[in-house]
Amino acid sequence: MPTYRAPTKDTLFVLQEVLGFERYSNLPGFADLGSETLEAVLEEGAKLSENVLQPTNRVGDTVGCVRLDDGTVKTPDGFKAAYDQYREGGWLGLAVPEEYGGQGLPYSLHTAVSEYMIAANMSLMMYPGLTQGAIAALIAHGTDEQKAQWLPPLVEGRWTGTMNLTEPHAGTDLGLLRTKAVPAGDGSYRITGQKIFISAGEHDLAENIVHLVLARIEGGPAGSKGISLFVVPKFLPDGEELRERNAVSCGAIEEKMGIHGNATCVMNYDGATGWLLGTEHGGLRAMFTMMNEARLGVGLQGLAIGEVATQNAVAYAKDRIQGRSLSGAKSPDKAADPIIVHADVRRNLMTARAFNEGGRALALWTALQSDLAHRSPDDKQRQEADDLLGLLTPVVKGVLTDKGFDHAVTAQGVLGGHGYIEEWGMSQFVRDARIAMIYEGTNGVQAMDLVGRKLPANGGRAVQLFFKQVGEFCEENRGDEKLTPVTKALKRGLNDLQAATMWLVQNAMQKPDNAGAAATDYLHLMGLVSIGYMWAQMIKAAQARIAAGANGSASFLENKLVTGRFFMERVMSETALRLARIQSGADTLMALPDEAF
Amino acid sequence: MPTYRAPTKDTLFVLQEVLGFERYSNLPGFADLGSETLEAVLEEGAKLSENVLQPTNRVGDTVGCVRLDDGTVKTPDGFKAAYDQYREGGWLGLAVPEEYGGQGLPYSLHTAVSEYMIAANMSLMMYPGLTQGAIAALIAHGTDEQKAQWLPPLVEGRWTGTMNLTEPHAGTDLGLLRTKAVPAGDGSYRITGQKIFISAGEHDLAENIVHLVLARIEGGPAGSKGISLFVVPKFLPDGEELRERNAVSCGAIEEKMGIHGNATCVMNYDGATGWLLGTEHGGLRAMFTMMNEARLGVGLQGLAIGEVATQNAVAYAKDRIQGRSLSGAKSPDKAADPIIVHADVRRNLMTARAFNEGGRALALWTALQSDLAHRSPDDKQRQEADDLLGLLTPVVKGVLTDKGFDHAVTAQGVLGGHGYIEEWGMSQFVRDARIAMIYEGTNGVQAMDLVGRKLPANGGRAVQLFFKQVGEFCEENRGDEKLTPVTKALKRGLNDLQAATMWLVQNAMQKPDNAGAAATDYLHLMGLVSIGYMWAQMIKAAQARIAAGANGSASFLENKLVTGRFFMERVMSETALRLARIQSGADTLMALPDEAF
Repeated sequence: MPTYRAPTKDTLFVLQEVLGFERYSNLPGFADLGSETLEAVLEEGAKLSENVLQPTNRVGDTVGCVRLDDGTVKTPDGFKAAYDQYREGGWLGLAVPEEYGGQGLPYSLHTAVSEYMIAANMSLMMYPGLTQGAIAALIAHGTDEQKAQWLPPLVEGRWTGTMNLTEPHAGTDLGLLRTKAVPAGDGSYRITGQKIFISAGEHDLAENIVHLVLARIEGGPAGSKGISLFVVPKFLPDGEELRERNAVSCGAIEEKMGIHGNATCVMNYDGATGWLLGTEHGGLRAMFTMMNEARLGVGLQGLAIGEVATQNAVAYAKDRIQGRSLSGAKSPDKAADPIIVHADVRRNLMTARAFNEGGRALALWTALQSDLAHRSPDDKQRQEADDLLGLLTPVVKGVLTDKGFDHAVTAQGVLGGHGYIEEWGMSQFVRDARIAMIYEGTNGVQAMDLVGRKLPANGGRAVQLFFKQVGEFCEENRGDEKLTPVTKALKRGLNDLQAATMWLVQNAMQKPDNAGAAATDYLHLMGLVSIGYMWAQMIKAAQARIAAGANGSASFLENKLVTGRFFMERVMSETALRLARIQSGADTLMALPDEAF
Repeated sequence: MPTYRAPTKDTLFVLQEVLGFERYSNLPGFADLGSETLEAVLEEGAKLSENVLQPTNRVGDTVGCVRLDDGTVKTPDGFKAAYDQYREGGWLGLAVPEEYGGQGLPYSLHTAVSEYMIAANMSLMMYPGLTQGAIAALIAHGTDEQKAQWLPPLVEGRWTGTMNLTEPHAGTDLGLLRTKAVPAGDGSYRITGQKIFISAGEHDLAENIVHLVLARIEGGPAGSKGISLFVVPKFLPDGEELRERNAVSCGAIEEKMGIHGNATCVMNYDGATGWLLGTEHGGLRAMFTMMNEARLGVGLQGLAIGEVATQNAVAYAKDRIQGRSLSGAKSPDKAADPIIVHADVRRNLMTARAFNEGGRALALWTALQSDLAHRSPDDKQRQEADDLLGLLTPVVKGVLTDKGFDHAVTAQGVLGGHGYIEEWGMSQFVRDARIAMIYEGTNGVQAMDLVGRKLPANGGRAVQLFFKQVGEFCEENRGDEKLTPVTKALKRGLNDLQAATMWLVQNAMQKPDNAGAAATDYLHLMGLVSIGYMWAQMIKAAQARIAAGANGSASFLENKLVTGRFFMERVMSETALRLARIQSGADTLMALPDEAF
């Protein structure tokens, strides 16, 4: 049975030593976050994850959700009790402004503890995760009345939320959607249509479910310009009292490869009552305001599953004895050495570890941009943070989920045949991690968002800022001999990224397929440089702490240096391959006629 | 529901135009293989695969094998009928020498049709696959009496075989195994112990099951030197008449991530009667004679699943309309374009296609070495073929299964959310493909076999031969302008491989961990160069055919050129990254102390 230990020390190191959390004490929510409070929040989140959420993860997979004949959905045993503890701990509203019943703490702190909770039970954490999306949409687009109506029970977690976008014929291309909204004359609408793949669409964890539904107001423009967003509750409320059942129901739940603990529903809207959220025909824009955070949340799923899978592979590799080290017996008293002595096993573990630690820093740095974008009193800082947030969001989503899946797969492989049988729980990690590469926009869509939208936005302002920050780091630390190998490797990566960007500028305008052909490699190239930048800062911070007297953390800091060196020396060399592929262009990809496939 | 079309035209192109099958008409089994016969065999194999085997694949996954209370195992509905058709077609004995009841046709032809059958139903094909392993072991190590006893019903497929190696504490490291054999005084032995992960260990497809079991003769040497191989049947036979049940039973079947249609058994031996196969304490060596073919068979599983998954992704990508091509609407009459127009979707499909076509050529070329090694009248040719077979076997196993899994994963991704739900069948491909990277020696073990055993064997004779062949191809075709981009790319890859080999020679002797740290990257580097070499030959053959008048195959041949160009231009650039990682050495991998993990 898998276990999990939340990496609180690593998180704290990133928040304090790399991101310099104390520098932001002027921002709302950051003020009282001294070292002790920060640590206490992380420790509480860790405890809940390890002791309450994680023990329900396995039954979530083996039993899963069951739709009963009356159309209700039963979640796996123990989910409700675990969810109640999560809810009662106030975790859902951790970063929600106090005026809406939350605690107003930083979103980056919410991100930090969310990683632990997702690692412990990804399927269960999707229920509040989607609620947070609904809360964000209501805060951004709701009228005062709507906020008063819907937010309090959502923030408390007594009600949960969903996002209803996909239809059978409309996934990535939402302009094709057909669900229709007809004004009822009383300010409400009647919603009719079918939505599919609706996570947490129906379940027994909450008293009510608030669906945010994309639909087309009758007579509105065709395509994506005619889409509006609606609030459609399962039970129609009078204040917080629930009145009759709305005409929305779960027609079926999908049998999936993984995340069996979360109900993926076909939702049927049969003239259901709903209210417009935001402006008429402004639905896509409203949905996109939720997208950054929702996508960061999915990126976090990749990181979290990659981490917990790796932890369990490490435990096995230390315990399982098989064969002898090539450099001579390491456990001569035993019949064989533990397999962690084998360089090829260690290559898998080190690769995952280096990505996990660097990816954690990247996720937290990106989340911090969201804090700055929303809370900084400084116009320029807000804009820069918003630029970086937009630029890095597809990278966090795409790269951390691709890598998280890869690491779950290699972790499974460390257990050999035992990884393949369900008994050891490694298969669940692989099967669960797979979905994060697909939903909230497949990683191909993330790559196109980065290359086609985020790069050219505002004349390339965001990516120029990124180049400037990374470039300045290299420049500023050029004199530091101990950092030279690090800044050199980072600079090489940055040069590759800049060359790729320049190639796109020169080749994608007249031939847009060159952008499409380059997109995924560009996404991963930027991922490598971003994570490399995080590692460079972590190495610098660790060196500084060691120089100042490690204060009981000597081995922790030394391990950071070793792992960082591994990333810079062995992993960063991939940037050259990504650049070469980008520069090979679209021709060889597009030359084969469609009918030849 | 997934479909499958056997790529007979591609296979035929490789066998005839690239491998030049007609050149070997002097070899036993090759003589009567004219173009028509060859095509007829492939077509018959294709028909069985498409019409009989494939329709049972889905129920194999959804229902799987069930162990009944009496210890017998029920295979999924339809498996028995499909197996019977396979058996009655004589496919099992296709490449078995005629003296043992087979047809004596080339092993490479057996490999060609096996790909189709595995693609159609991998789980079902494992039953005869393991039987073939048992047949090979009996032919190589059995006495005349043993051959007469066991081979006829096995070759007919009325009985099936298994390989019993793994024990709970002994997987890769077979020296640790504890199953014990005690002489009974009548020439037989009593076998006692527990084996796990025994594929096809118990089932209802055959009248009898012949287990080949590794065990330790009491009093024999410790470690791998004291292991012997035994024939232990489920029913003790008198001739072909089955007498009493032997003391071997299936204690449980494993719940696995995939291949649900094959029973993975815990086998309990409680003083079961068995007979020594080969020499006392010569069990490991005997087992290894089966290994090359067994590993090629597993490599074929990777190729086969990668191919069928890609075929289904292609069908979806042509059918699913979503969004518009970046270069302008391609289906302006429809609400959107089919997603195959998107460069990023096509990148996935082209990558898989190029590996599948190149990988097929590599698998067939390697299988041909087995034919030459066993059947050539020429000593030098036999030895060279045996050298190449040993060298390429870990490459075929490791690279084709790693890539096959990758392609199943990307094929699943092409279907977006539909790929993740079980209904569309793509999840099964991913879950089935995963095991091929693990069993018959994990791919890490393959990499170590290549670097630690196959490279240094006979002073590097095998790899030098490989370098010579690839180098000579580049040299001979230097003057051919149309081939220049191809030979250049291949030469660059070969240079990287030679540099990596040189680095190993210089750095792995005094520090063996450098070999371990390099192994997986070296395996894939050799995979790239091998497949690149196949592509170079396919391109050359296609160009020659076009120049000679394509004879109705113009588009087939042109597509080969386009796909080959894609491989040489876009894929081969990875060799530089593999070399860079190899040259970064073991230091960064091994620096972290075990307790830091």
